[in-house]
Amino acid sequence: MENLMNKISQEGLALSDAVLKVDSFLNHQVDPVLMKEIGETFASKFQRDSITKVVTLESSGIAPAVFAALTLNVPLIFARKRKSLTLQEDLLTADVYSFTKEETNTITISSKFLNEEDHVLVIDDFLANGQAAEGLIKVVSKSGASVAGIGIVIEKAFQNGGKRLRSKGIRVESLAKIAKLEAGKVTFVNEGSFV
Amino acid sequence: MENLMNKISQEGLALSDAVLKVDSFLNHQVDPVLMKEIGETFASKFQRDSITKVVTLESSGIAPAVFAALTLNVPLIFARKRKSLTLQEDLLTADVYSFTKEETNTITISSKFLNEEDHVLVIDDFLANGQAAEGLIKVVSKSGASVAGIGIVIEKAFQNGGKRLRSKGIRVESLAKIAKLEAGKVTFVNEGSFV
Repeated sequence: MENLMNKISQEGLALSDAVLKVDSFLNHQVDPVLMKEIGETFASKFQRDSITKVVTLESSGIAPAVFAALTLNVPLIFARKRKSLTLQEDLLTADVYSFTKEETNTITISSKFLNEEDHVLVIDDFLANGQAAEGLIKVVSKSGASVAGIGIVIEKAFQNGGKRLRSKGIRVESLAKIAKLEAGKVTFVNEGSFV
Repeated sequence: MENLMNKISQEGLALSDAVLKVDSFLNHQVDPVLMKEIGETFASKFQRDSITKVVTLESSGIAPAVFAALTLNVPLIFARKRKSLTLQEDLLTADVYSFTKEETNTITISSKFLNEEDHVLVIDDFLANGQAAEGLIKVVSKSGASVAGIGIVIEKAFQNGGKRLRSKGIRVESLAKIAKLEAGKVTFVNEGSFV
């Protein structure tokens, strides 16, 4: 997605060869026009898949996912990263380790919002080693629902998450695929590099 | 806002005389059509106020706030509830106690996204005792930015947050004001009750 790759090139900060900071338009400050385009692009890719629910993980997935859900005219569910006092009954759960935050979170979805009739589009902001995506798939699958595929805003294609998911037959649609991060430079897969 | 009040009446669950659960359309599962209408309503109320940024608190504020930001054509910033490894430099912070979760969180905004030129619309899902709203105002104010007002999806008017904020001269626009919660029954301010 050209506008997304341009934005990453202009504002993304390669903090190391593994960490890309995009907090000016995705992870902290959010560009709503870009989020709308991202959400509509996901919806377009899955428009023939009879999606009944969009599922994402709080917090950075919510903005792109709500536009996908709006366009597909289905509800969005954002999985919680830990239990709250008002969400305790019948939780679907999976443990997810975050390499960025160096901690394990239990992600949860209330079982009353998903069942075996559902066909789910999973959306997340980043795909790196695939922990979060696999956790989301696990949680959705526990309800009996099926997963149509995963929409990823930014895939770090130099990490193994995308490969692992695709090798399991899971459809992964990434709007920007990063081949390499170096100080001050982001190289996209099949797209050349931007300085 | 009529559609919002109807939704609260139909799907809101009064768990006690203080706790209203709205996880079927706002706090966990999200109704994107309703979020769009809520966001556009906030934008409409503040359209003459030269808003430069919308600020909310992760996670439940993000969906309504991103539609407000889109309509006002300004960036959204979602304040984080704790520090992450990739967001450490120059943080604006405030401590917020959550009565629902019985814990204190430090809410943070990176100082690079707000300055004294900014005029901010703050949006949050609930207003009860005002802790989160006051924390957001504190964080925004630390940057030198001014606050145009606060947009609240659901105000529990029987708690004192709204009164405290308004007595300080802060403009508070609540789309649904709840006068009273009883088992199975939600009574709105000036709107009668729904069973």
